[in-house]
Amino acid sequence: MTNDWDLVISGGTLLTLSEKMEVIEDALVGVRDGAIRFVGKKGDGRPPEADSAETIDASGCIVMPGLINTHTHLPMVAFRGMADDMPLMEWLENHIFPAEGKYVNRQMVYDGALLAMAEMILSGTTTFCDGYFFEDRIAEAAAVAGMRAVVSQGFADFAMPDHPTRESVMAAADRFVRRWLPYAPMIAPAFFCHAPYTCSPATLTTVKEAARASGILYLTHLLETKGEIAQIEERYGKKPVRHLYDLGVLDDRTICVHCNWLTGEDMKIFADCGVKVSHNPESSMKLAAGVAPVPAMLERGIVVGLGTDGSASNNDLDMFGEMDTAAKVHKVASLDPTVMDARTVIRMATMEGARVLGLEKITGSIEVGKQADIIIIDLKKPHLTPLYNGYSHLVYAASGADVKTSIIGGKIVMRNRKLLTMDVGKVMENVRRIAENIKAGL
Amino acid sequence: MTNDWDLVISGGTLLTLSEKMEVIEDALVGVRDGAIRFVGKKGDGRPPEADSAETIDASGCIVMPGLINTHTHLPMVAFRGMADDMPLMEWLENHIFPAEGKYVNRQMVYDGALLAMAEMILSGTTTFCDGYFFEDRIAEAAAVAGMRAVVSQGFADFAMPDHPTRESVMAAADRFVRRWLPYAPMIAPAFFCHAPYTCSPATLTTVKEAARASGILYLTHLLETKGEIAQIEERYGKKPVRHLYDLGVLDDRTICVHCNWLTGEDMKIFADCGVKVSHNPESSMKLAAGVAPVPAMLERGIVVGLGTDGSASNNDLDMFGEMDTAAKVHKVASLDPTVMDARTVIRMATMEGARVLGLEKITGSIEVGKQADIIIIDLKKPHLTPLYNGYSHLVYAASGADVKTSIIGGKIVMRNRKLLTMDVGKVMENVRRIAENIKAGL
Repeated sequence: MTNDWDLVISGGTLLTLSEKMEVIEDALVGVRDGAIRFVGKKGDGRPPEADSAETIDASGCIVMPGLINTHTHLPMVAFRGMADDMPLMEWLENHIFPAEGKYVNRQMVYDGALLAMAEMILSGTTTFCDGYFFEDRIAEAAAVAGMRAVVSQGFADFAMPDHPTRESVMAAADRFVRRWLPYAPMIAPAFFCHAPYTCSPATLTTVKEAARASGILYLTHLLETKGEIAQIEERYGKKPVRHLYDLGVLDDRTICVHCNWLTGEDMKIFADCGVKVSHNPESSMKLAAGVAPVPAMLERGIVVGLGTDGSASNNDLDMFGEMDTAAKVHKVASLDPTVMDARTVIRMATMEGARVLGLEKITGSIEVGKQADIIIIDLKKPHLTPLYNGYSHLVYAASGADVKTSIIGGKIVMRNRKLLTMDVGKVMENVRRIAENIKAGL
Repeated sequence: MTNDWDLVISGGTLLTLSEKMEVIEDALVGVRDGAIRFVGKKGDGRPPEADSAETIDASGCIVMPGLINTHTHLPMVAFRGMADDMPLMEWLENHIFPAEGKYVNRQMVYDGALLAMAEMILSGTTTFCDGYFFEDRIAEAAAVAGMRAVVSQGFADFAMPDHPTRESVMAAADRFVRRWLPYAPMIAPAFFCHAPYTCSPATLTTVKEAARASGILYLTHLLETKGEIAQIEERYGKKPVRHLYDLGVLDDRTICVHCNWLTGEDMKIFADCGVKVSHNPESSMKLAAGVAPVPAMLERGIVVGLGTDGSASNNDLDMFGEMDTAAKVHKVASLDPTVMDARTVIRMATMEGARVLGLEKITGSIEVGKQADIIIIDLKKPHLTPLYNGYSHLVYAASGADVKTSIIGGKIVMRNRKLLTMDVGKVMENVRRIAENIKAGL
């Protein structure tokens, strides 16, 4: 006999993150074939519980969509804490780039990515968008971990660990896209041009054309530091956003990461073109890169998601910490405590993140028809007591460690803080061994 | 037969936070009669392990001094998440003050304080400095929880829940001090003048004289918002710090909380008088009050500790989050990533916090002769893997939930995440009941 439901989540406070931001007390969520097929109140309508292969009791918990991290460089977990508290260019050129040149290889990327996924699942992230080297290996790790992923093949005009010569990149990128396109909606390939200052106009446009031809996302770091403005102006006689606009690479499948020094004029171009933004406040604070004008972007209707960036500049992948910081830093930067309220920030970490990644029909909210990307947060803890407002707790008081259970595409990948898709002890040990090797060379 | 040692902590990476910032791998710490009597390496010198009543295995962990929260209003946990994302004065005058007027009483203060202490112990804080109403009850709760505390009797020129008339305050304060002075070094009474804008010159000076007579600390909120400058200038014809200086209340037993708008001239006065500062970055970010010029204070040799402020403006008491934010917000505010490095920030949360509270001979570091206020952080987690630098992990990657064991004055108050001095379920239930009552009145 088969059950009507594969999984039912019963009880708790459900934050749907739907357009109406519906909140359901004592809720019931029914999952079948990886998708959400029932959202309601316990006792309302048909009761799927009796007929489910598995039921999770979520009473005393918040049930909400899994978090979406719109910008990661996952294998950089291997460099976590290796170099801190120094200027961005010194950090990048004297520490990160040399370490990457020496230690990044297919195995390191896979081991690092799995460790990062363990950390993400344990802290409630169910979807990420990554850009690194040997991205094939990250997609493979995502398949093992059971995470939803946008994986980006990187491009730059300098030699990269996976592409020592420029000629091999385009052909490899084509193979990469053809390999992973069939894995939708779990894995989506994308292209990532490192930055306007490391990619020539020819690289930027060729890659965008290829991305358009395959219907995939196109990403670039943009305006992380103020210095980039002068650099691009000197080289091309115009500001970075105008430069990208004139090259024709800005459209609604383009994601610009950081955007700390976006002007009003830049925002108008973004809004007109439908460009999406990945906002990484903690990384940009730690590197003293700047504070992105996110409240102004939101006012202009630009879609903004949250991201952590790599673990060498954060140094964790906890989206709860990122939400907390995002809410607070814009308040103090503008001296206006009403900006970036808790609801806005939670939307950025869920539904808006899904829109950034073009996954708004797949994930980001708990609604019938969407994939079952769901997390359950345990409120029975001193720092989450009492409860007036779930959104407030999630942004201002919770941490990743409060996530009890994580479900991706209907599959339980973490239950009661135990990872079910990997041997976490072994995953940690593998990266410890890589770090021992790096330490020996420091 | 009695043992030579009450407690031995064996193994792990010991961050002493001593003047030399000594780090000991595979360490051994011996505790007797509440104090640290041995600090060394396993195998070095005498081995206290064999002769200890209790041994904690800390291998794979960081062992460090317990964190010191230099500014709390503990019972405000009952208002956590009740009102967010609004201007400070609207928040204070339309939400917090009315709620305090209506719901603060002896029982609420005790129940709220115990819940806050549960949260603090679970997140590695072993010492706090509090100011609220019915502070006797907070001292009693601290004695039950086994926490080290500075408890401050409050003063202001408006009616307070515990002192509806001004006349009763001074006599009550005297009783309060005499009651708690004998509880050193676990509990220390202090006086807290709310702010220069709520306390007349007579209140400020009378209270300071009484504090001097008893040899206790004197605290005040200062320059939380920019508006305070104009307010005090209008009333007294001078800036707030000069006003306090001229009243003679600034000395090395005075702690000024917030100090977001301190000028260079103000800092010179602070440095000359030895005034201490409690820095609460998250609260001041959430309320959009400002960013204190902490790097400049440190350059001038002013002693600065970290604090969370109350849970209505943070909204948690996690000092790990506070360290992370402190390190990051000053980097981006100054666009200098080298300020507030991890070591500096950890010192602010431990040894410098102890100096702020005049407890530098009692706590804040792991050295022979000090009280055994020790926390053990479990590193065997994905987000704390690999390990290059313990300080970096504690500031940039760890959260309060990574604290495995907390010891205060040699007594284990939390072991393997289980609180040993209170029934946490009951403590949470008590505050939930208070909140139900508040919600009914909202």
